[in-house]
Amino acid sequence: MNVQKTHYGLTEAVDGLPAGWYYDPAHYQREMAAIWRDSWVYVCHASEIAEPRCFRTIQIGDQDIVVLRAEDGGFRAFHNACRHRGSVICTEHKGKLNSKLLVCPYHQWSYAADDGRLVRTTSVAEPANFDKADFSLYPVAIHSWRGCLFVNLDPNAVFDPGLVFDRSSEAIDDYPLEDLVVIETWRKTMACNWKTFWENFNECLHCPNIHPELSKLVPVYGRRISDPRDLAGWEARIDDTDPAFSGGLRQGAETWSADGSAQGHLIPGISEANRARGQRYVTSYPGMFIGAYGDHVRTVRILPLGPEETEIAAEWLVTADTAADESYDRANIIDFAILVMGQDAWASELNQRGLHAAPFKHGVLMPEEHWVKSFHDWVRARVG
Amino acid sequence: MNVQKTHYGLTEAVDGLPAGWYYDPAHYQREMAAIWRDSWVYVCHASEIAEPRCFRTIQIGDQDIVVLRAEDGGFRAFHNACRHRGSVICTEHKGKLNSKLLVCPYHQWSYAADDGRLVRTTSVAEPANFDKADFSLYPVAIHSWRGCLFVNLDPNAVFDPGLVFDRSSEAIDDYPLEDLVVIETWRKTMACNWKTFWENFNECLHCPNIHPELSKLVPVYGRRISDPRDLAGWEARIDDTDPAFSGGLRQGAETWSADGSAQGHLIPGISEANRARGQRYVTSYPGMFIGAYGDHVRTVRILPLGPEETEIAAEWLVTADTAADESYDRANIIDFAILVMGQDAWASELNQRGLHAAPFKHGVLMPEEHWVKSFHDWVRARVG
Amino acid sequence: MNVQKTHYGLTEAVDGLPAGWYYDPAHYQREMAAIWRDSWVYVCHASEIAEPRCFRTIQIGDQDIVVLRAEDGGFRAFHNACRHRGSVICTEHKGKLNSKLLVCPYHQWSYAADDGRLVRTTSVAEPANFDKADFSLYPVAIHSWRGCLFVNLDPNAVFDPGLVFDRSSEAIDDYPLEDLVVIETWRKTMACNWKTFWENFNECLHCPNIHPELSKLVPVYGRRISDPRDLAGWEARIDDTDPAFSGGLRQGAETWSADGSAQGHLIPGISEANRARGQRYVTSYPGMFIGAYGDHVRTVRILPLGPEETEIAAEWLVTADTAADESYDRANIIDFAILVMGQDAWASELNQRGLHAAPFKHGVLMPEEHWVKSFHDWVRARVG
Repeated sequence: MNVQKTHYGLTEAVDGLPAGWYYDPAHYQREMAAIWRDSWVYVCHASEIAEPRCFRTIQIGDQDIVVLRAEDGGFRAFHNACRHRGSVICTEHKGKLNSKLLVCPYHQWSYAADDGRLVRTTSVAEPANFDKADFSLYPVAIHSWRGCLFVNLDPNAVFDPGLVFDRSSEAIDDYPLEDLVVIETWRKTMACNWKTFWENFNECLHCPNIHPELSKLVPVYGRRISDPRDLAGWEARIDDTDPAFSGGLRQGAETWSADGSAQGHLIPGISEANRARGQRYVTSYPGMFIGAYGDHVRTVRILPLGPEETEIAAEWLVTADTAADESYDRANIIDFAILVMGQDAWASELNQRGLHAAPFKHGVLMPEEHWVKSFHDWVRARVG
Repeated sequence: MNVQKTHYGLTEAVDGLPAGWYYDPAHYQREMAAIWRDSWVYVCHASEIAEPRCFRTIQIGDQDIVVLRAEDGGFRAFHNACRHRGSVICTEHKGKLNSKLLVCPYHQWSYAADDGRLVRTTSVAEPANFDKADFSLYPVAIHSWRGCLFVNLDPNAVFDPGLVFDRSSEAIDDYPLEDLVVIETWRKTMACNWKTFWENFNECLHCPNIHPELSKLVPVYGRRISDPRDLAGWEARIDDTDPAFSGGLRQGAETWSADGSAQGHLIPGISEANRARGQRYVTSYPGMFIGAYGDHVRTVRILPLGPEETEIAAEWLVTADTAADESYDRANIIDFAILVMGQDAWASELNQRGLHAAPFKHGVLMPEEHWVKSFHDWVRARVG
Repeated sequence: MNVQKTHYGLTEAVDGLPAGWYYDPAHYQREMAAIWRDSWVYVCHASEIAEPRCFRTIQIGDQDIVVLRAEDGGFRAFHNACRHRGSVICTEHKGKLNSKLLVCPYHQWSYAADDGRLVRTTSVAEPANFDKADFSLYPVAIHSWRGCLFVNLDPNAVFDPGLVFDRSSEAIDDYPLEDLVVIETWRKTMACNWKTFWENFNECLHCPNIHPELSKLVPVYGRRISDPRDLAGWEARIDDTDPAFSGGLRQGAETWSADGSAQGHLIPGISEANRARGQRYVTSYPGMFIGAYGDHVRTVRILPLGPEETEIAAEWLVTADTAADESYDRANIIDFAILVMGQDAWASELNQRGLHAAPFKHGVLMPEEHWVKSFHDWVRARVG
């Protein structure tokens, strides 16, 4: 007799990834090559590079990339390295070019910002065997998806939202991502592998003890699950008035904030279903996730700095109206998220510390960790 | 004609260990596997984990171990890693459990402190293929030898004092080690290989210039030897009243302290021979030695932190009476030992600095360095 | 038809060295073995080790060398490692011995400073198989060239100025190098490979933007060339009164200083040609260059600390008369050179930062970079 499974949860305990994958430097290099140099990696919201000539740099492992807005308003990305003798070109994390050119600070070779072509060297004459056309900046693929900028170190990569997002972006089709503006950013370096952080993100078994405040805001988390459908029998109470069974924020809460209030700034145009739920998540492995809430959207970028060091960086996005309202208490959303992300960072670091135990070959995934399993499958498909 | 050798000293100059063994990262890993993961390593005196539920953690290389006292008063040791996804369980260096359980701070899997068995997960249900009996904490062997706690990463290791101690523990059979209490601890990180420190410990050729104060307290050290029997002809003056020839502390000194005085707190029950000598040493390679003196015992623990980084940690132990006497000047013993250990650390670091010289393939051991030779033999038997 | 090339510049664009040679740890070790352990490396001016028994130490990679002046006034160099158990002997960067002996601080083995022979151990007796003659300090070749001290880790190396200097030392034959004295020293650690710094030294394409002050002092640098002869057609204006075409310092300037003035302290005996030019350079790969100016000489020593870390150290040398003149404003020459060297360090670090770009396999050398090409040829001949 076959029983049709209708819940998300795993029906068997499943082995985790090999422990060495979280700290072995050689495996880290394999992941840099097989994953990070071949994936769409989030940079920042387009509003952070608002005007032509503005630029940002991002380090993906040891690869330094410059992302800029060209005169035509479009985005471009290049390796941040001069073709002459390899100097870095943009020396700051962010800034604005003085002209339409990217000028190397070392010998002032000049490249067109709009296509990276070498426009000018500083030699008095160029030899016959030197053709400027052979010395364009190395291109990096870039795509602006609904105002979110992604780069791919494979210059020929194609951006397909159906492949780029793991938890589908359709869930937030009703959010006006393109029109939002960044009101705050935050960064933190964690002593853990990048996968350790993603595993933490992908389950809520840890929520009651690690996130007491969040577990009050999102009652289903208090049950150690991420979604009511994680467990068998969910159908019975999915229409319950108790969000511990129907999902979403606690009754009365409108957004992911300290007091649950959206301060009269609910983002307009959101579907009734999303409004009722109060939070939706979209993920893009290996580099980011989006949290969409009543009055704001939060992006979180994950970047590996080493086998056991990872940076997370968050942006808070609101409507222009909210940004302009001086009476809107930003700390209500910002401090709450920093509290939760700090708790996740602490838990990820605890997890990392124990992974070196010699007899520990791999962990085990329990039923509630179905999204961790999906993440492991995603990783194994690339480096397994 | 055979001459029967009666002194301890080497009769030939002997080659030291290969220079690379003191700094090569690959050899360091060999030693971690062949020596440190297969030896009894000192943790601390039992009085430091006085009550049930109290615990300590220790790092042996990259292996994090938790040592605790169970409800039955006995000691247990486990890898400090949760079987679920590998999180560290005890996050502090020392502390006391809230219950009879070791509870992982990440997802709150709970293990019985008395045997490490998994008692409880936090999943709503456990899959059919998941048996808690398969997920006990990884055991580490532990043994309390006369109040001194040792662990061995090989869980099946057997503690045999005759093998664990290199300079025999019988020398201090008359010391009431079990009944002493720790009154002070001290730690220092040294820029040297762990073997460099042990070599320093194992000879006194360096004493007159490195330890001027100690060489006054122990006159035989002023002769650059560790024991009167190191040199041929020792028999002639072994009963001399001059301790430079008969050994032990200077006349009038009772213990290893700044002024030589035991302040009326000689440990009772010590044999006349030990009392007269004033100091006895027991060694346990690779991780500790014990110094037993008139009014106190000092343990010194050695732990490798890297190929050229080593931690030493000392404990001072006295009788309960001495500990309770507020007029007893502890600095008299503590400051003196810190002075001497600091001098040894400085010398060990000097030694380490020069080892990289390209033409230096190995050192040479002189007659007085017979214990260094014994130590080298011990190392070679394991990684040679 | 063959056109006879009369200028220095490259007539073709030329590939640079492989990018990995600037950061790969394994290649760094190849260079340490093939270049740094087999080259004459500058230590300091002889006046810095003015008297018998004075010493300096220098680290060439992980090799620690002691350089001293013996009783006969001559120089000696040894590995700074005791033959007993490898301890470092001279623990300070500079100092003066207490006697004619180098005494190890660990066990006080004593070596003759004049030839490194082992004079005394501290063992009560030396075994029959121990011959002091086998335990001399490991010798390092040393040569005083016109008051400049060079060492070579190959003890049998022969100092041939024709081979040691790449840009010939004959250019400064008229400078009384032996008689000058050091009035200031300066050191800086740079986050770049040692070759990155040398490449920077070997071209002036970067001068106008990196060195605005220097480009005013040396007008030909303002044209992005190091020498008027770099470009075709140089003959036409080589006798021009405009130094932008004839070379040398700006009109009215006498030396490499903030205001161009030598303050009445021109070094006597300098040829008219050198006096008119105001600056001459001599290079000795891999470890130093000399700049000779109107009133002073500056040495710059380059030492690798790691694949991406390099130390530069400068000495300013003047005549005894200048050194004795309290009215001579030393900052005029010192601050100017520190400004320029700091700019070069900054540029070298920019260059290093970009070299990791994955598609960047090697740079390209332009016509003005002929000396960079010579340097690359020198490197390739040793590790290619």
